[in-house]
Amino acid sequence: MATIKDVAARAGVALGTASRVLSGSSQTSADSRSRVLAAAAELGYIANGPARSLRRARTDVLGLLVSDIRNPFFSELAHAAEQEARHHGYTVLLANANEDAEQADAYLQTFAGQRIDGLLFSPQSTVSPQLAATLASGLPLVFLNRRIEGVDAPLYGTDNAQGVEQVLAWLRSRGHHDVAFVGGPDTISTGAERRAAYLAGRQAHGINTDERLLDAGDFLAGGAAEAMSRILDHDVPFTAVFGANGLTTLGVVRALRERLGAERAARIEIVSFDDLDWFEFASPPISAVRNDASSIGRLGVRGLVDLIAGRPAPGRRVPTTFADRALPAVR
Amino acid sequence: MATIKDVAARAGVALGTASRVLSGSSQTSADSRSRVLAAAAELGYIANGPARSLRRARTDVLGLLVSDIRNPFFSELAHAAEQEARHHGYTVLLANANEDAEQADAYLQTFAGQRIDGLLFSPQSTVSPQLAATLASGLPLVFLNRRIEGVDAPLYGTDNAQGVEQVLAWLRSRGHHDVAFVGGPDTISTGAERRAAYLAGRQAHGINTDERLLDAGDFLAGGAAEAMSRILDHDVPFTAVFGANGLTTLGVVRALRERLGAERAARIEIVSFDDLDWFEFASPPISAVRNDASSIGRLGVRGLVDLIAGRPAPGRRVPTTFADRALPAVR
Repeated sequence: MATIKDVAARAGVALGTASRVLSGSSQTSADSRSRVLAAAAELGYIANGPARSLRRARTDVLGLLVSDIRNPFFSELAHAAEQEARHHGYTVLLANANEDAEQADAYLQTFAGQRIDGLLFSPQSTVSPQLAATLASGLPLVFLNRRIEGVDAPLYGTDNAQGVEQVLAWLRSRGHHDVAFVGGPDTISTGAERRAAYLAGRQAHGINTDERLLDAGDFLAGGAAEAMSRILDHDVPFTAVFGANGLTTLGVVRALRERLGAERAARIEIVSFDDLDWFEFASPPISAVRNDASSIGRLGVRGLVDLIAGRPAPGRRVPTTFADRALPAVR
Repeated sequence: MATIKDVAARAGVALGTASRVLSGSSQTSADSRSRVLAAAAELGYIANGPARSLRRARTDVLGLLVSDIRNPFFSELAHAAEQEARHHGYTVLLANANEDAEQADAYLQTFAGQRIDGLLFSPQSTVSPQLAATLASGLPLVFLNRRIEGVDAPLYGTDNAQGVEQVLAWLRSRGHHDVAFVGGPDTISTGAERRAAYLAGRQAHGINTDERLLDAGDFLAGGAAEAMSRILDHDVPFTAVFGANGLTTLGVVRALRERLGAERAARIEIVSFDDLDWFEFASPPISAVRNDASSIGRLGVRGLVDLIAGRPAPGRRVPTTFADRALPAVR
């Protein structure tokens, strides 16, 4: 197994420098930091756990790094996580990656420099040197709702396959054949899982497989509106749209109203992954998969508390429910 | 001026204990902590600034303590603050008080124990011993949107009087005489300022002054729905409702639809302080004061960066705009 000496040698820095970087000190140059982190990642360096925890005093603080704090799913999740953490005697410091992998790395660095007992993480995409260093430091970590392929940490997240199945069944029950799908980035596990489940299930539910009815945004309203607009440009008719998360659905509604006018837009039924406060007030009301952000936040904290105490934390997929708000027989 | 020795004497603890408490160490008992903090608050203890900053290494981390992360105003503000902070080379750690003064205190304690260079704070109500200790520690601090009477820190916040004036002018232009007002807690400065401006201006704008049309919630949807329900119980007719923040308006819409049904509810015009994503989709659309959360977040960070650098930060009221979504002559 690689030692800190191996990391220092590979990075071409002094042992003390490698040690400072890996313990998250800010007293290091950007250059030596990136070299040490890259070397640690390449060598799969794992810090000596027991020795580290002797050195690290408990702070009763957990870190929570969310993807986008303006996404109601994550603000609800953050709220629930913090309430649960307080039950266990922890406070939670939040950081917002804004769906930006570089920004997520900056916050991993911040958390390394601060003193936290464990990290709840909703990642952007792949393993970065900074994430590798965080994992190597032995800091207890759980993934919330999104995971990174190949990283051995428990995931507490939505059952995306089940949620998409509920949407497909609802679309069929409403008699829709021509359905537009606005997904999220394939680099984010929730985006990839929801798209895969939709593609796998649509034919069995009698849904048009024309690829021009598929597009993807950035899981934010702006990118989703552009994706919806591109689908409209193809001039393939559709009677329903499925938005792959809450902010995506917001962008979908905006684009439809802007391009078609409120009246024609209201003739298209919309269904969403994630249920937002205002869906019941939209016309027509928007049906949605209820993604249980509160349970995910609470279970994630319990899992992290278990890890910190040296107990196993197996991770869990949280079931979704479906809010059917379809008006009786409009068409 | 009170010294740390005076604080220790008043609290009846050893000098080292007082020093540990005031530097935010967790190695102190709850009892000695509360005694030291109370003594520091009573004596108006101010830490020796230069000596402290010599001791305190820069961490390039700012703390941001918001009132409720599920309130879109604060999640937008947090997002903008963090983007601006990154321009200045800082990362931001967020904490959520959940509109709970005790929880706010717990986070002030957490930030004291962590290492931050300055604090952006949206407070709940009054000066607590923990806030007194934070102020006494000499940590640079600015208030965001809400302030505490008597605390000498710059405020970056909404111009509430201007926003309410825009609502009153709009209500008059729409011909409303009987208007229900659902406010927020008077213990929060934004709640108190909006209510005061409404009470001061309503007569001049020809609005019914019947006190049964006034109630207040907790600035969350649940409490606002209850307040709206109490107003309905009085059976005083009204043609419009003014909700004093975004989540209040959500609660108002829910209560009206639940009590009156969607059709009768749609005959009441709603106007809100805070503009939310979905207001344009409501039927009828909801007009709103645009509370510029992004500017407040950005200006607050710039003010805090100035304070950290020893420059003056005068605070600022940020102007509101008004989104008029009234449909032409419904009545």
